[in-house]
Amino acid sequence: MILLFDKKRLLLYLCTDRALAMGRPLAALVEAAVAGGVTMVQLREKGLNTRDFLEEARAMRALTKRLGVPLVINDRVDIALAAGADGVHLGGNDLPVEAARALAGGRLFIGATARSVEAARAAKEAGADYLGVGAMFPTGTKSDTVTIGPATLRAIKEATGMPTVGIGGVNARNAALVTAAGADGVAVVSAILSKPDAEAAARAIRKAAEGAIRPARDNPE
Amino acid sequence: MILLFDKKRLLLYLCTDRALAMGRPLAALVEAAVAGGVTMVQLREKGLNTRDFLEEARAMRALTKRLGVPLVINDRVDIALAAGADGVHLGGNDLPVEAARALAGGRLFIGATARSVEAARAAKEAGADYLGVGAMFPTGTKSDTVTIGPATLRAIKEATGMPTVGIGGVNARNAALVTAAGADGVAVVSAILSKPDAEAAARAIRKAAEGAIRPARDNPE
Repeated sequence: MILLFDKKRLLLYLCTDRALAMGRPLAALVEAAVAGGVTMVQLREKGLNTRDFLEEARAMRALTKRLGVPLVINDRVDIALAAGADGVHLGGNDLPVEAARALAGGRLFIGATARSVEAARAAKEAGADYLGVGAMFPTGTKSDTVTIGPATLRAIKEATGMPTVGIGGVNARNAALVTAAGADGVAVVSAILSKPDAEAAARAIRKAAEGAIRPARDNPE
Repeated sequence: MILLFDKKRLLLYLCTDRALAMGRPLAALVEAAVAGGVTMVQLREKGLNTRDFLEEARAMRALTKRLGVPLVINDRVDIALAAGADGVHLGGNDLPVEAARALAGGRLFIGATARSVEAARAAKEAGADYLGVGAMFPTGTKSDTVTIGPATLRAIKEATGMPTVGIGGVNARNAALVTAAGADGVAVVSAILSKPDAEAAARAIRKAAEGAIRPARDNPE
């Protein structure tokens, strides 16, 4: 765990996917989404070579710095460090959390994908700073992902107390179910990136996500 | 430049390519090639995800340690560091040498691909430990590579004095042309990996490569 990670940044977490941007520049979409309330950005690039991914990451680093939101790089610790990103997100096909922590020390916060209480405990033990839990709902973004739902997220949150974001099929209609289950926020791909108005889409999801978090905060119990 | 790099290790440098191994396990081929005289091994994996690449690198680390040859990882500084490899090799689509050096410090030696005197000077300036120069000859391994030949290698060696290995289309018949042009060794892919007897293939190339280096060493001038 490192000090620079603030779990409030998980509230509305945008994960990029070039294929869903329908030819529009990612930078413009990210800027619109942040204007609509996105609190953190993850750059995901599966098709680029290392040099091109680094250049994209550096451009996104400059943009997110200007916009005042943390930047997370998917999978690649080397690129996250070379681009000066704030964090790295590790899925099951990426470096193990221990290996990433050994490379990054305190220079990056580390997010880890967890699909079970057992995996969540292991990620916490290995030094992850937050958990990405999903899929919350059926999704077209990742066809190989099992839907585990908000109930598993609630169990993970209760078992670990870790900062946790729900991902997978989240949109304005169901985001409140995720935060009501104890998530610190929702991670979104297509429900923002594939919309004609990314800013309005982000605003609607944020409002829904906050709706289920606010009452708990205001509750004197 | 770091102390652990020994340019004599460039003499016969095997670069792996799973596709050329014709279904045979890489480990067995590497072991045979080292028995035949290979002095350094580079693991190249373009199709694997990070986790699988790391596992392969760790297995190759254990094998090369047992065989007593340095291990270099292609492209991925994160995997090289996490696997405890000796070096990383960076081509034009990989991290810039400066960025890799900033990540690796003195924990890895760094090889850089150079196809011109200008690129070689830049790589030296950026902190590379050796240069990979090619293609020496026409090759089927990389269809997008321009053949620059031993003459350009000679010009690079004279301009930079860097430890230099010639790569691309090198085999037992032409290896002496590369070392005669000033290379410290030859890097080989298919001329070892795609042969039924990798050990014999390595032995023949090493003999050819050494043939042009030995007289210069024995020369009292």
